[in-house]
Amino acid sequence: MNIVLLDPRQTESEIWTISAKRQLEHLHTHVGVKVGDTLKVGIREGKRYLTEIINISGNSIQLKPLKEEKVPEKLPVTLIVALPRPKVLRRLIMDAVTLGVDKLILIHSYRVDKSYWQTPFLQQLDHFVTLGLEQAGDTIAPKIELYKRFKPFVEDVLPIMISEHSPAYVAHPYTNLKMPYAVDHSCTVIIGPEGGFIPYEIDLLIKNGCQAVSLGNRILRTETAIPYVLGRLFSTT
Amino acid sequence: MNIVLLDPRQTESEIWTISAKRQLEHLHTHVGVKVGDTLKVGIREGKRYLTEIINISGNSIQLKPLKEEKVPEKLPVTLIVALPRPKVLRRLIMDAVTLGVDKLILIHSYRVDKSYWQTPFLQQLDHFVTLGLEQAGDTIAPKIELYKRFKPFVEDVLPIMISEHSPAYVAHPYTNLKMPYAVDHSCTVIIGPEGGFIPYEIDLLIKNGCQAVSLGNRILRTETAIPYVLGRLFSTT
Repeated sequence: MNIVLLDPRQTESEIWTISAKRQLEHLHTHVGVKVGDTLKVGIREGKRYLTEIINISGNSIQLKPLKEEKVPEKLPVTLIVALPRPKVLRRLIMDAVTLGVDKLILIHSYRVDKSYWQTPFLQQLDHFVTLGLEQAGDTIAPKIELYKRFKPFVEDVLPIMISEHSPAYVAHPYTNLKMPYAVDHSCTVIIGPEGGFIPYEIDLLIKNGCQAVSLGNRILRTETAIPYVLGRLFSTT
Repeated sequence: MNIVLLDPRQTESEIWTISAKRQLEHLHTHVGVKVGDTLKVGIREGKRYLTEIINISGNSIQLKPLKEEKVPEKLPVTLIVALPRPKVLRRLIMDAVTLGVDKLILIHSYRVDKSYWQTPFLQQLDHFVTLGLEQAGDTIAPKIELYKRFKPFVEDVLPIMISEHSPAYVAHPYTNLKMPYAVDHSCTVIIGPEGGFIPYEIDLLIKNGCQAVSLGNRILRTETAIPYVLGRLFSTT
């Protein structure tokens, strides 16, 4: 947690109050906060401030804002990922948010076990987003969309996102074209499930405007591929 | 698991045998292997082959090699990481190995809890390496070294690794110099603990030949920073 995210309603008066148990525990256990310390605070969907701790009680910490700080910019990327195993979902969402993905889309694919769509973790996306924002020092949640049917998504939704100036790249091991790097334009990146997209899916993606590109000779796990690809694509930022 | 790694002793005769419970379970449960299927197999510290399954019994699978395949090249990078929380260690080692790090060094740092050095996971590094190699399709384990004292490591060991043609970059948020990208030379990358290196440590690293470079305005977790940095540095590979 590199900033504490507050709801706008918690920052309406001159003195702000942290009262969420998770945040208080972190601040007491890991940061060891004292009155007079400064603390970075973000207002969810709003600005970010350096604040000063003016009072600590058993179940709250009170702050006053000192000065505004810069909210980091998003990467101009829409990340489309085949829904991963529930165990991986939390980390994947957190990482995508921390890295600054502007929009995140979770889709079905042939090799995604249908049971994954029943995981209770899908009800907790907003919490995972909060964790990712607090890690990054960001305040603005990315847009998140879910599509449980592959074909209608690829044929009806995906083409609208793609243009000459904003291409879509699907990571695919069996192609000679390499994933680009140091791009200076927006784009869409599509990462398949464990085991990859099936040939029918790759063909449908290509038919609907995607470029199949390789990440090299090593097969990465989904959650490893995401930061690897974003580091590569946006290497000049 | 994208290849099955065998010990050289398992491949001395013409017919090779998979007998490890973990590998058999994976092949039966996730791959659903049948006699006649092809299977990618690597010989630990050796070559990689496409094989054919010629017999399946309750506690073994027998193969014959069909043709040699290319073992992916390593990245020309030494990765130095402050020892992470035990929970993260397995994933971090696996990822570093999967991504192709040539040499991995775990070091102590002020913000590394001393108890982390007692984790039983440190006795299982070889297993985590195997998992990383099997994910990547690689056969060659990277060198792994552990240094429990920061200062002697930075003063006596680190300078030997650094040269004009092989610089060392320490990821540090408070610098204007950016982490380079698309490099065509070997290098060393140093990633601090959660909360970062303390100023004394950064100063000592710089004094001993490291360049402090920034990864941008977002603070990444150690395990996210590793693939992000490697994707950025070696974006032309």
